[in-house]
Amino acid sequence: MKNYKIRIQYDGSKYKGWQVQKSTPETIQGKLQQILSRLSGEKVEVIGSGRTDAGVHAIGQIANFHITLPAEMSDHELLLYLNRYLPEDIAVTDLQQVDDRFHARFSAKEKTYRYRIHVSPIAEVFAKKYVYTYLDLPLDTESMKQAASLLIGKHDFKSFCGNKHMKKSTVRTIFDIQISEIRDQHGLKEIDIDYRGDGFLQNMIRIMTGTLIEVGSGRRSPSSMQEILASKNREMAGYTAPPQGLCLMEVKY
Amino acid sequence: MKNYKIRIQYDGSKYKGWQVQKSTPETIQGKLQQILSRLSGEKVEVIGSGRTDAGVHAIGQIANFHITLPAEMSDHELLLYLNRYLPEDIAVTDLQQVDDRFHARFSAKEKTYRYRIHVSPIAEVFAKKYVYTYLDLPLDTESMKQAASLLIGKHDFKSFCGNKHMKKSTVRTIFDIQISEIRDQHGLKEIDIDYRGDGFLQNMIRIMTGTLIEVGSGRRSPSSMQEILASKNREMAGYTAPPQGLCLMEVKY
Repeated sequence: MKNYKIRIQYDGSKYKGWQVQKSTPETIQGKLQQILSRLSGEKVEVIGSGRTDAGVHAIGQIANFHITLPAEMSDHELLLYLNRYLPEDIAVTDLQQVDDRFHARFSAKEKTYRYRIHVSPIAEVFAKKYVYTYLDLPLDTESMKQAASLLIGKHDFKSFCGNKHMKKSTVRTIFDIQISEIRDQHGLKEIDIDYRGDGFLQNMIRIMTGTLIEVGSGRRSPSSMQEILASKNREMAGYTAPPQGLCLMEVKY
Repeated sequence: MKNYKIRIQYDGSKYKGWQVQKSTPETIQGKLQQILSRLSGEKVEVIGSGRTDAGVHAIGQIANFHITLPAEMSDHELLLYLNRYLPEDIAVTDLQQVDDRFHARFSAKEKTYRYRIHVSPIAEVFAKKYVYTYLDLPLDTESMKQAASLLIGKHDFKSFCGNKHMKKSTVRTIFDIQISEIRDQHGLKEIDIDYRGDGFLQNMIRIMTGTLIEVGSGRRSPSSMQEILASKNREMAGYTAPPQGLCLMEVKY
């Protein structure tokens, strides 16, 4: 039995998120497990670095699985086999054998997510499924950057957790939040927010993004981030930004 | 009455091509004319640099139209007005007043189209609507480049014309055909063919691409291009590559 680490890219538009659900086969984990279990003749569990919500995309999701392969199958053939049977909006872009103890979730040290906000009244024709279109301008990116800096560090992010019944620790460390402004000849076109941390709670990035947008539009002050964190109350934070703007970029081990 | 030149971007997936058709409102020209005619209260004709087929995309289509605007409307307001009413897969990315004699079709001096062929068994997840997936490898790009070089220059391209009843001249000049290979860690991923010329006949780029693919796969020799050109017979050329790989990149005046 071998342990494989894979890197996965997916357009999450059509899927109910990463994690297998009893009610639907339309999850990324579900598609992978189905193909691998059929190949090996045994139930294969694919362990992701973390769940992504319904509609969220990934460029660098990482997962691992233990499998006994048909004797004649090489690693490269396994990679091609997976891509042949996966739907065209999911691709395995890398595959390698790893140490038996490697666990995509427990071994993960750092994750980077990008949230893309399209702010131009000129449509984003080719990437429209991968951005959140927000036209209620102006958005003051300076105050968004100030607010974001107050979220960096080790904090209890309970106020930014979408799961009300979360029983485990809601303490996480955010290493960095980078806000980039992309311009074209008409002015500001897109705001990208890159979140880098040791892990994120359910909906946490989408709630942080919604809250930062409320700061940018003047409905909150940047300093209110401290009160939100201290309150440990979801009601104090902003709205949950929609999933299609979010993409898991990279997981480090 | 003013003459406006616009640059248009579109995802052609859902459309029946550029040109207005009686049978369907789903054309790019149709959408633009509808919005502009409603604005001005008179029938406005939008003149494109050329037609694109159903399913073909554009990053830099150029068009012009003559219009009498409401007195208080600035050029920038007209640009925003168009983008507000256009569907999200069509965008006007630039607009400027031009000399009364400017004609997007007759004044055009050079057009560049790109045809994207995805050749990797690993799916193109995020751009899949904008590439032609061709997995019947190998494709010998060296012989494709040789064949392409024989198409450069001023020729009668009747053999590469999709319109059997074409009565006008089928002589065109191709300035350059550039074939680029895009690689990733698994090897060749994509072949992009950039065609630059003074104009192209109906389906001409898609037929040239299909013929070049037949050369790359060994079914034709590069030198057969000369016989195809000389025959002036559509039957002698290769198949018509599908529309979704094609994009109009730029029009020069």
